[in-house]
Amino acid sequence: MAIINNKIDISDRGVAYGDGLFETIAVIHGVLQHWDLHWPRLIMGAKRLALNLPAEKDLLANIDLNLENTEKQIIKIIITRGSGGRGYLFPEPQCEHIIITSHRWPERKTADYLTGINVIVCRTCLSIQPALVGIKHLNRLEQVLARNEFDDKDYQEGIMLSYNTNSNQLDSIVVEGTSSNLFFVKDSVLCTPKIDTCGVSGTMRQAIISSVQASQLCSIEEGKYSLRQLAQATEVFFSNSIYGIIPVASIRVNESQQWFYNERSISSQLAEEFNSPLMHPTF
Amino acid sequence: MAIINNKIDISDRGVAYGDGLFETIAVIHGVLQHWDLHWPRLIMGAKRLALNLPAEKDLLANIDLNLENTEKQIIKIIITRGSGGRGYLFPEPQCEHIIITSHRWPERKTADYLTGINVIVCRTCLSIQPALVGIKHLNRLEQVLARNEFDDKDYQEGIMLSYNTNSNQLDSIVVEGTSSNLFFVKDSVLCTPKIDTCGVSGTMRQAIISSVQASQLCSIEEGKYSLRQLAQATEVFFSNSIYGIIPVASIRVNESQQWFYNERSISSQLAEEFNSPLMHPTF
Repeated sequence: MAIINNKIDISDRGVAYGDGLFETIAVIHGVLQHWDLHWPRLIMGAKRLALNLPAEKDLLANIDLNLENTEKQIIKIIITRGSGGRGYLFPEPQCEHIIITSHRWPERKTADYLTGINVIVCRTCLSIQPALVGIKHLNRLEQVLARNEFDDKDYQEGIMLSYNTNSNQLDSIVVEGTSSNLFFVKDSVLCTPKIDTCGVSGTMRQAIISSVQASQLCSIEEGKYSLRQLAQATEVFFSNSIYGIIPVASIRVNESQQWFYNERSISSQLAEEFNSPLMHPTF
Repeated sequence: MAIINNKIDISDRGVAYGDGLFETIAVIHGVLQHWDLHWPRLIMGAKRLALNLPAEKDLLANIDLNLENTEKQIIKIIITRGSGGRGYLFPEPQCEHIIITSHRWPERKTADYLTGINVIVCRTCLSIQPALVGIKHLNRLEQVLARNEFDDKDYQEGIMLSYNTNSNQLDSIVVEGTSSNLFFVKDSVLCTPKIDTCGVSGTMRQAIISSVQASQLCSIEEGKYSLRQLAQATEVFFSNSIYGIIPVASIRVNESQQWFYNERSISSQLAEEFNSPLMHPTF
């Protein structure tokens, strides 16, 4: 295993095949947020891809070297399978490359939290791949394509559907945002798409599920939901490890349909718990 | 656009997201093989991913700098979207990174050509994703996982099926090998899976289709074929830009089923045309 700074060999399998994992972690006053959820996801990903992880304490010691004396920063960890191997075949021995970088905190508009964001349904779908579901791997072209379908000025996030050959778009299954997980409230039940065939099992999503189950704030359900079901939702919000909980004001489904959401009763309570530690507005 | 040598910035989107394309080209006595097929595939990929390509003559001039005075070498081109962008959003301006590397020619056993290779059906399936079909993008985790299901000693290539929720494995659609395209002969018709929902549109595959159409060696058909249909094939072979045409001796379907192939009438004629220039055995 090797820590890589600044430059990586062009033969790295991260570049060649996207052969690795990453995590993006919020750091507030030097404290990693939800490390207890990021680390298990790394373990799950490493197991799935047959990658070796450093010991947790060694990884944390290396992260420490990248901590800055600031209120808020982002730490990104990339772990690749390193260089070598014949084509797709794993290298033997396998020497993982670990990249730890610090990033400026990306502030987003207060209005996003107070009035909610406008969202569009992306044309690029998530392919169904149980071998890669849930983990934060480096094969992100679907998200790259989906995110570039819309412009910040009009829409602040896109909803991704799972790929489906023969249905009306409204019957397609909703999975997540391009870089966030999706929640909605219907008949007082908090619903979130089950991450079992595609999508990322977000740490903030996990934190929300655990919190709601513990506090019994409301009923919570993971399931398969069609886009059509979002039309009947009373509130909709996204979750992300950096941005916390972001309410959705509207969903643009197609040229002729846009749905609006005004309720914030559950998302505002969750924002008290999850946005405050990230120093984001509550609503 | 920038040519990258040896080391690439750790912020490159090739590492972060697999956001780019590649080509692997056989070079015989300094001549790029099937460049007339590699270049259009790069163009198709660049269009699909909204990448900018260098002018063909500039790319070729840079490839020239990597040519060695050897009988056989491999040139690999990687084109990434460069660094930058907010998350998945494209950088603006976008400065593609171009990596050109030379690799030693990987000789394979003469027996692979003369007696054919043993093949296994992989458990890792190809997900259906029309947005990425055909192009040689850098999101290759499915191939990495599939290729590592089997050991060289027992099997020399794996067959990948397309993902399918509710069918018997034998009804699943065959797509390609982990690093090659698949052909088979049934009732004197040369068949190859249609690359329209998943898989790579290989340059050698294209060359074979064009050649057979021009020479009228036999009928040729692109279609959706189930694994079951391979049981009735008289001959089966793989194609790859480096290895040419490789006959299949057997397919291991599961613990209790293995199918054998002895015929070589069409593949041997194609090998005369395509393996000879690559200095591989004909059979």
